[in-house]
This record gives sequence, structure tokens and C-alpha cells, in this order.
Amino acid sequence: MSPVETVAAFIAAIEAKDVDAAVALAAAGISYENMPIDPVVGHEALARTLHGFLAPASTVEFRILKQWTFDRTVINERLDRFQIGDGWLELPVAGVFEVDGDGKISLWRDYFDMGSYTRQFAKLAGR
Amino acid sequence: MSPVETVAAFIAAIEAKDVDAAVALAAAGISYENMPIDPVVGHEALARTLHGFLAPASTVEFRILKQWTFDRTVINERLDRFQIGDGWLELPVAGVFEVDGDGKISLWRDYFDMGSYTRQFAKLAGR
Repeated sequence: MSPVETVAAFIAAIEAKDVDAAVALAAAGISYENMPIDPVVGHEALARTLHGFLAPASTVEFRILKQWTFDRTVINERLDRFQIGDGWLELPVAGVFEVDGDGKISLWRDYFDMGSYTRQFAKLAGR
Repeated sequence: MSPVETVAAFIAAIEAKDVDAAVALAAAGISYENMPIDPVVGHEALARTLHGFLAPASTVEFRILKQWTFDRTVINERLDRFQIGDGWLELPVAGVFEVDGDGKISLWRDYFDMGSYTRQFAKLAGR
């Protein structure tokens, strides 16, 4: 798979809420960096984090609005959508992915506004 | 100037707190989009917004950590730094710039965590 195909498969696994499939596409030392918080490093931590944020959502969709590939780096502007209860949480994100020589994702760095996430989550989850 | 040179000159103008020079590099219909808030459109609104966020800072630095150019689009990961009083506000940002056929910036879209900005600002400005 090319880097862009690897990222597409990774995102498809997340949308399917298939954490094992997502982790299988990640390098053992993956650094998953949500910029407002500390990096999550390695398969176990990645799986735990993915389970945490996918669990409340009945449907998950990462809409890729624009995407660019430079060598082994894939960058996208996305609208990440999570169906929670009767509504949708929608989050604009800029993502940077690096794919290593073995075709595994070694870096996933997302830039977004945490407050946009938490305010919508609180409303939808009724908390 | 190439698109990447235009973006470099625009960022240099911001670091110099020279709003007029920055606006001169922007298309008349520029859309300046800080993702957590509504787009700022046009020269006047751009100038007002830039004055607002540059005014409290004695020194402004946009550290470009990584940058990619694809045709007329320039994308960067940055650490934007603002010296306020005795301290520095530091904000990780992913930016997308589009430069039009006249060499003017028609889109500037930044992804960042607003809470990271406001919490540091409140502390440094003593508010």
C-alpha cells in the first residue's frame, strides 16, 4: 500500500470502530498526538485511547475535505463526525500522518479545538 | 514571488507587527479562518483582527516547524509565540494558506486549541 492508501485504510478502520484493524496499521512506536494533550505512544496506549473516544459514538465518520501527500507524509483537513445519542458531534481537524518504510503509521498528529469537542459532547451526552 | 515566498513575507509582516504590510499581501476577499470561530473576510476585518491579537504582545514569533507547498497551497505546522508581560504564550498551530494568481493570500486557515490560547493569555495578562 502507498502511504495515502495506508492512511485511508486506517481511517476506514476507525470509522468501522475496528480498533484492532487500526492498531495493525500502526507502527509499534506510533506517536498519536492530539495537540491540546500529551502524546499517546505505542499500540496499547493507542488502542486504549481509540476505544475511549469511539465507545460513545454509534456512528463515526471522518470526512476528508482536502488531502495532500508529500513523500511519506499525508496531510488532511477533515470534519470528524460522531453520532452520539440523537445528534452529531462535528469537529474540524487538521491531521498529519507519517508512514514508515514498513507501511505502518508512525505519527498521527491532529490539530483541533478541544472546547468545540467537549461542549458538543456534554450537550449530546446530557452531561 | 512564489506562493511560499508570499507566505514567508506575510508571516514576517505579522512578526514585525506591521499590519499594513500583512494586509498588502492579502487578496481583497481574503478569508481568514480561525477554526474555532467565524471566518474573518476582507482587508478591513483582517486588519482589525490582526491589530487585536498583536496588540497585547511585545514580541511575536511564528516558528515554522514543518512546511509543505503543493501548487498554490502552503501548509505548515507552527509554534506561534507571543511575549506578553514577562512570559511567552505558545500555541501549536496547523495552517493552510492559498495564494491566488495575483500572488495574494486568498485563504488563511488555522487549526488550534482555543483553550490553550485563552488559558495562557489569562495567566500572562493577569486577568
